[in-house]
Amino acid sequence: MSFSNQIKQRWQQGTAVCVGLDPLPELFPAAVSDIFAFNKAIIDATADLACCFKPQFAHYAAVAAEPALKQTIAYIREFYPSVPVILDSKRGDIGSTATMYAREAFEHYQADAVTVNPYMGSDTVLPFADYADKGVIVLCRTSNPSAGEFQNRLIDGEPLYLHVARLAQEQWNRHGNISLVVGATAPEEMRRIRAVAPDLPFLVPGIGAQGGDLQATVDNGRFAGGQGLMINSSRAILYASSGADFAQAARAATLTLKNAINQLAE
Amino acid sequence: MSFSNQIKQRWQQGTAVCVGLDPLPELFPAAVSDIFAFNKAIIDATADLACCFKPQFAHYAAVAAEPALKQTIAYIREFYPSVPVILDSKRGDIGSTATMYAREAFEHYQADAVTVNPYMGSDTVLPFADYADKGVIVLCRTSNPSAGEFQNRLIDGEPLYLHVARLAQEQWNRHGNISLVVGATAPEEMRRIRAVAPDLPFLVPGIGAQGGDLQATVDNGRFAGGQGLMINSSRAILYASSGADFAQAARAATLTLKNAINQLAE
Repeated sequence: MSFSNQIKQRWQQGTAVCVGLDPLPELFPAAVSDIFAFNKAIIDATADLACCFKPQFAHYAAVAAEPALKQTIAYIREFYPSVPVILDSKRGDIGSTATMYAREAFEHYQADAVTVNPYMGSDTVLPFADYADKGVIVLCRTSNPSAGEFQNRLIDGEPLYLHVARLAQEQWNRHGNISLVVGATAPEEMRRIRAVAPDLPFLVPGIGAQGGDLQATVDNGRFAGGQGLMINSSRAILYASSGADFAQAARAATLTLKNAINQLAE
Repeated sequence: MSFSNQIKQRWQQGTAVCVGLDPLPELFPAAVSDIFAFNKAIIDATADLACCFKPQFAHYAAVAAEPALKQTIAYIREFYPSVPVILDSKRGDIGSTATMYAREAFEHYQADAVTVNPYMGSDTVLPFADYADKGVIVLCRTSNPSAGEFQNRLIDGEPLYLHVARLAQEQWNRHGNISLVVGATAPEEMRRIRAVAPDLPFLVPGIGAQGGDLQATVDNGRFAGGQGLMINSSRAILYASSGADFAQAARAATLTLKNAINQLAE
């Protein structure tokens, strides 16, 4: 099943929570021996509540744990095949190199979707989008403090992020597999992006430690008919407890977020 | 020695050639067994002529050859320590994650410099720049066909790439370790970037297959006193011959480019 259809199915099953798999070994409970063991416990505890999983590439690359990343994705695909995996690596390079990064994400790591940086334009996005069954999630308005430095600058009277959103909606989405990264820390920007990109799912970072507003996200980010959101939470789920009960605590945190989203969306 | 000083030393020794280490096993001569063996032969044949080496991350990641990448960088650092290594991975992420990518590039891979995407603003660049001895090479005006889609759009009457250049020159360069990626395919843009960023070295892709103009690069990209350029060539060097003489052919191609740059710069 394509990434787009997987996500739609998860929405219909009542979840919009993206569980971010950002392992920080220094925060692991004492009993956990390695990254894969930690991830496996989190996945087993949250898969039925998750819209998708999102491993953040740097957390693996920084400690040469690429094998644990591959093993984590393989585990999800084998045991929870209805929950798609987004590889959050924010790739962006010239066309022939973008093709290699697409191969890395979709063939080597077997991810269902990947995040992509649009600064270099269409020919860095389309080699990913050519994998019609895979998802391509383009950075649009990110959640970090300096996101607006370039993204909010006006071009022909409209901020750069809206130009990205419009190209994504009108030109890059020919296979119906484009989504956008839109931070919860920028609710007004989210409202404007939804207006120009009515069909594109949003991957939403910035809830939790970054201070994003969940109510505004739900109000401003949903599709006209509801749904449309993959709301990421990483640390609040992964490190809900530092004790032996970390997996149960992760499940509770996921359930709390899932229910909060559903209540706000009513 | 810092990346900046290494590069200055190589310029003084008369070379501005960046040898791109973009291994494509399907193009290797029959006698070459693996990526590291290929890279080693190229490095041994070109190190005395090279200003720097630049492995392109995707060429390794797409085939799970991260160990060969690490081995390649370690080999250069051991046997040719005066030739710095740029890890071309075009990273860009929120602050805490950027710190992890910096750790990946500078500590795990032991690169001397890394390429970084500015779309997310200052807090994705500064965690790299905090490594004062390392180089941070920010995408400014790239060489690919769609580079201008966003980079050339006007903000307050000036293209986006100039805003990036100005922030790099005026705010990100506090440790004197920032460079810019400026494609040879955009000579007029290069002239304008040099005017607002007089002190920043340029890493220049786009010579060769992409059709960039070497004369215009030298004319428009040099510092006021000459130097200032790291002109990349990958395929024209690596695959100058598909026979057993590939390393000698790579040396000849590097020497040809080195001499052409020096002649044009006279």
